[in-house]
Amino acid sequence: MSKALFFHAGCPICISAEQQVAAALDPARYDVEVVHLGEQKSRIAEAEGFGVQSVPALVIDGQPFHINFGASLADLK
Amino acid sequence: MSKALFFHAGCPICISAEQQVAAALDPARYDVEVVHLGEQKSRIAEAEGFGVQSVPALVIDGQPFHINFGASLADLK
Repeated sequence: MSKALFFHAGCPICISAEQQVAAALDPARYDVEVVHLGEQKSRIAEAEGFGVQSVPALVIDGQPFHINFGASLADLK
Repeated sequence: MSKALFFHAGCPICISAEQQVAAALDPARYDVEVVHLGEQKSRIAEAEGFGVQSVPALVIDGQPFHINFGASLADLK
């Protein structure tokens, strides 16, 4: 089972990406944790550590995949 | 079973997104078709019809999700 992280900040782009992309991952292979960076600012550094520059972003096996063109992390600090 | 389309143009960002995001979708719920727009230019209009502006992009239930910041469709024409 691989770990996937879905970082977002509650924006409309984020919500639709969460409900359609993060939720579409194969539950037999991926354990998806959803992290709301607007509410959990302490985890912004963790997202940056994976190379995340904007949200929403999906991190699969440690690799960041930014989805659509959301808010930059700098705006969340 | 829902249809998902993964539009790409063979670039490095595309390949890693394909192998990790498109391939991570739940095969029980999604039938993923991979479309190489560099080789199938006739399908660029189809991608644009879904609102795709750059590749790689995943289209799930008709909604476009651009992944990372790849090449714009205009560059493929």
